[in-house]
Amino acid sequence: MAKYDLRLDLHFAALSDPTRRAILSRLARGKASVSELAAPHDMALPSLMGHLKKLEDAGLIITAKEGRVRVCELAPDTFVPVQDWLSEQRAIWESKLDRFDDYVTNLMRERSQ
Amino acid sequence: MAKYDLRLDLHFAALSDPTRRAILSRLARGKASVSELAAPHDMALPSLMGHLKKLEDAGLIITAKEGRVRVCELAPDTFVPVQDWLSEQRAIWESKLDRFDDYVTNLMRERSQ
Repeated sequence: MAKYDLRLDLHFAALSDPTRRAILSRLARGKASVSELAAPHDMALPSLMGHLKKLEDAGLIITAKEGRVRVCELAPDTFVPVQDWLSEQRAIWESKLDRFDDYVTNLMRERSQ
Repeated sequence: MAKYDLRLDLHFAALSDPTRRAILSRLARGKASVSELAAPHDMALPSLMGHLKKLEDAGLIITAKEGRVRVCELAPDTFVPVQDWLSEQRAIWESKLDRFDDYVTNLMRERSQ
């Protein structure tokens, strides 16, 4: 079984909300201030800040003060842990299909003898 | 902004738990009965059934009675919505890098003139 990875719990939980996914998509285009991030969302600022805190606590984004403005950007390699987990599942799945291929090939070989 | 996709909420939330991820990894190897899935986990059966229900409600697994045994397997294209979302973010990110490349190339061209 794969080593237990707390980051994956936090990353997947952070990604389970549409506002947080929209914020990450916006940040994939480049860094943005909190008010730029808030603009497309019909949401009180404290709620939006709550989402940003969850993304920051999960290690998905970095925030920093630039003068009087708080600016957010994607953390380096933001989606790598989640992508790695998915790739691992695909590898397990494909090795199962390979074993099934081998089984069918052997079966056909035996029958043709 | 990407169309809001309730499945993504459910899939990411389902994936945010280590027991549920371990169950999915096990099922990537092939279908299994509830007791086979329970074996590696030090957990009361009702708790494990709760995890299976969450995976089934999210559409990540399918369960069916085979005689007296309940058997679970991965739903078809289990990880496709999550993988598609990640690929979309990568595409946004890469198109940003391309624009930055163009910007630097143009800047160098202007300076060399």
